[in-house]
Amino acid sequence: MAVYTDVNDEEVSEFVSAYDIGGALACKGIAEGVENSNYMLTTETGIFILTLYERRVDSADLPFFLGLMEHLAARGIPCPTPVKARDGVALRELCSRPAAIVTFLPGLWPRRITTDHCRDMGEALARLHLASMDFDLQRTNNLTVGDWRPLLEISGQAGANAVSPGLYDVLAQELDYLEANWPVDLPVSTIHADLFPDNVFFRDGHLSGLIDFYFACTDAMVYDLAICLNAWCFEPDGSFNIAKARRMLATYRIERGLSEAELDALPILARGASIRFLLTRLYDGVNTPADALVVRKDPMEYMDKLRFHQGVAGVADYGLE
Amino acid sequence: MAVYTDVNDEEVSEFVSAYDIGGALACKGIAEGVENSNYMLTTETGIFILTLYERRVDSADLPFFLGLMEHLAARGIPCPTPVKARDGVALRELCSRPAAIVTFLPGLWPRRITTDHCRDMGEALARLHLASMDFDLQRTNNLTVGDWRPLLEISGQAGANAVSPGLYDVLAQELDYLEANWPVDLPVSTIHADLFPDNVFFRDGHLSGLIDFYFACTDAMVYDLAICLNAWCFEPDGSFNIAKARRMLATYRIERGLSEAELDALPILARGASIRFLLTRLYDGVNTPADALVVRKDPMEYMDKLRFHQGVAGVADYGLE
Repeated sequence: MAVYTDVNDEEVSEFVSAYDIGGALACKGIAEGVENSNYMLTTETGIFILTLYERRVDSADLPFFLGLMEHLAARGIPCPTPVKARDGVALRELCSRPAAIVTFLPGLWPRRITTDHCRDMGEALARLHLASMDFDLQRTNNLTVGDWRPLLEISGQAGANAVSPGLYDVLAQELDYLEANWPVDLPVSTIHADLFPDNVFFRDGHLSGLIDFYFACTDAMVYDLAICLNAWCFEPDGSFNIAKARRMLATYRIERGLSEAELDALPILARGASIRFLLTRLYDGVNTPADALVVRKDPMEYMDKLRFHQGVAGVADYGLE
Repeated sequence: MAVYTDVNDEEVSEFVSAYDIGGALACKGIAEGVENSNYMLTTETGIFILTLYERRVDSADLPFFLGLMEHLAARGIPCPTPVKARDGVALRELCSRPAAIVTFLPGLWPRRITTDHCRDMGEALARLHLASMDFDLQRTNNLTVGDWRPLLEISGQAGANAVSPGLYDVLAQELDYLEANWPVDLPVSTIHADLFPDNVFFRDGHLSGLIDFYFACTDAMVYDLAICLNAWCFEPDGSFNIAKARRMLATYRIERGLSEAELDALPILARGASIRFLLTRLYDGVNTPADALVVRKDPMEYMDKLRFHQGVAGVADYGLE
């Protein structure tokens, strides 16, 4: 959860007056999004999300993120749409920060994942990748294989081993393997790269919204699938649910198809996706002040996922033939 | 700010299904209310506030709080109205906590207070007191003169003096004075007892809502006015703004009247109101874990207010003739 910037009544009213969305009726900081300050903004014409971009988000990337949401929404992907002010500009400034208003998507995110959720997820992810193919902006993934060793070094040997004895060496060895074997030349599009359950809304049992595109980047589509495999197909006790994985992968394959090379790459990409979240959680744990308004997540959850994928022989272990 | 309890999608949907307000479309934890978990709940019929009662609120008091809001709303006071489920019951249970849905009040709370805000406040406070007179439930104020010394002792000599050297003795002396001279037999009604600017919404320059009745109690009406004098009539630099006080007190007096005894009591009640917030802030500072999701407030802001009121000779110093 996070609300960093305190926006006052006069600032909100003046900001909203640049838009054709009616006057501001209420603006409440919400516990959503870790990187930015988010507010539920009620105006005379409806409900919107107001986001102030803080800290980690590079303002040079904002045209990519907002452009992507606009591109996807225009192609029927249920994602927030940036709202333009009367001057045609969506990316503005509030409280000395970049700020934007996007449409509000109704829906609740699922806490207890079912195979039906995984089916909808696989389908939605494939559609997202297909819809992104003609998006003309690019953004380098800055949390991929080449970025992981620097991230481990910043957290440090002592920092890693404080979380779990011997963790540093285990991670360093895994990075040796990943750096030597990371697949190249896989089909690329814009990927979401952070499609965890709390970024996916469902309504009446069907997927109704995808949110939080602030890690989106240009990368191998099947890597996005590997991230979702980790985020959706493990049970709270850490065990892998092959029925969920089969459902997600099968519906993705029906919608977009998966090449032999993509299928072969899935196990190592899933190892990489484990390392990526393990390392950012480790970094956050080492670097977040104890009194920050952030709930820290356990890096070791991803150590268990990594170990599972290290033992995978091929996509059959994920439920695919 | 505070969101303590994590409510999931299935729990929200089931909870809302007991009401005639349509299905739950979204439920977002909001940074509002320090004592409870608050969510902005969007349903097929509108926007509501869902509150889960945590920690400090005594569940035995909830019928009083909810009954008061219902009573006041029925008399035209712009406050949240508890929504009853189909079985006629407003106070329910969610995630093993008492829970209620109340109506959503649009409006933004003012950060830069003007004399016009103070005029509206004085009028609204008088109307609140008048509308409460025939409310038949009672609740003892458990944060008044007899409760302050125990609160000081719990924070302790070391705790108080760590905030400011010598603070403990200054407060103990003030309590000697207040305990010996606290006025009795002033006219009583139900008072809000916590009507700070963040509990008052304005829209298009006019007061549109009063919220957060979870400190309301049966006590001297003019004590509520003393609390508001402190909360609304001091500038950010600590100076007293007599124009704001005059405006607030004068409109209150026009609306409800103030007896000689009430006017005479105002300076000592304002001293008491200073001590009350100073002591709870001191207690919170001493007792809140460093990593709690709560923004702690400065107790010494109220030491400055206390000193001002100690120097007041009579209501003329507050701008009244």
